[in-house]
Amino acid sequence: MAVRALVFDVFGTLVDWRSSVARAFAAAGVDGDAVALAEDWRGRYAPALEESNRGERSASTLDELHRSTLDELLAARGIEGVDDATRTQLVRTWHALDPWPDVREGLELLRRDHVTATLSNGHVALLVDLARHGDLRFDAILSAELSGAFKPAPEPYLTAARLLDVAPGELMLVACHPWDLAGARGAGLRTAFVDRPLEHGEGSPARSDPEADVSVASLPELAERL
Amino acid sequence: MAVRALVFDVFGTLVDWRSSVARAFAAAGVDGDAVALAEDWRGRYAPALEESNRGERSASTLDELHRSTLDELLAARGIEGVDDATRTQLVRTWHALDPWPDVREGLELLRRDHVTATLSNGHVALLVDLARHGDLRFDAILSAELSGAFKPAPEPYLTAARLLDVAPGELMLVACHPWDLAGARGAGLRTAFVDRPLEHGEGSPARSDPEADVSVASLPELAERL
Repeated sequence: MAVRALVFDVFGTLVDWRSSVARAFAAAGVDGDAVALAEDWRGRYAPALEESNRGERSASTLDELHRSTLDELLAARGIEGVDDATRTQLVRTWHALDPWPDVREGLELLRRDHVTATLSNGHVALLVDLARHGDLRFDAILSAELSGAFKPAPEPYLTAARLLDVAPGELMLVACHPWDLAGARGAGLRTAFVDRPLEHGEGSPARSDPEADVSVASLPELAERL
Repeated sequence: MAVRALVFDVFGTLVDWRSSVARAFAAAGVDGDAVALAEDWRGRYAPALEESNRGERSASTLDELHRSTLDELLAARGIEGVDDATRTQLVRTWHALDPWPDVREGLELLRRDHVTATLSNGHVALLVDLARHGDLRFDAILSAELSGAFKPAPEPYLTAARLLDVAPGELMLVACHPWDLAGARGAGLRTAFVDRPLEHGEGSPARSDPEADVSVASLPELAERL
């Protein structure tokens, strides 16, 4: 079955959250190592999504979830004196993350022959801001928000296929996280692993996904391979 | 309250359904006047949407609704010999309608200072096809499909505001149909009337909407006015 549409994970896969969020901590004057704070905040993300999927945490948008994990992070580290306005501003940082250098061009190449859309746990309004910030062009902005569950639950993947009017087997998820790709395969999607060796900075642990239909180092390479 | 985001009606407002659908009837060799058939098909649209909103007609996508109104149209006119493949192809015509000449440039101008999205009774997959066909760039593809009701019911307008994370009063609907603008105002949105005097061909009845916040003759004019 031919791949008719591509959906893209966003945080880590298309945009470099770590540098932008670390810069925001530094600019806000929050005590502690800014990169460590960014990694800690991001590290609280997947467990919080799982809690939400299990009904143990309520978060109608990723902004709310980021706010609660930020509050937890600051409390756990005993960091005081970060006022409400600063916390709100830090949460907004996730709306303005810089794309990896290959992304804008790669998306344009992939759009020529395939329908392209985001498929992130970020909510629609955040993804619109990210796409505008990075001048990234998609055919549609799709989000876990439209399905009522977060990835890697099957609902977001199946909702994307339904909304794009393709069979799950005609839809390919492009992502750098094996857990996301495994979730997509569980819902019947095709998968493309794109390596982002700098997601966690120099010396990040190597990742791969032997079960992916294709593994590439950049989006232009994916365009060549498809 | 400032307008932060713009949502656009599509059929008639951004694309010229009449010429494209008439061409499709002529190309398919359907008996009768092709323009009259296009007008008749489109004339069955609003009543069918209302029936769906009242629960008297089931249609999960606009393709299904167009198929049933096409079948009704051909039956009502006693036109025989239009096979299933031809009917399917006619329904697909609505995925490839040409934009009015000012639309591509106007959307680019409006995107500079505002978030832009479709807000059509067409389903997401159809709107993706239309945007790709016309090379129209939006920040998001929003559809009545995401709300479970068709315009002019309030749900599509309110769902668009929620997904774009703006208050209804910060969202403006751009449309050429007073019934759509009235529905948007009923949901608390701002409204822009854009005149499309050729929607029904030369000699179409003049339209206006005195209650609209702004009335313009083209999208570039709207960009100047906002």
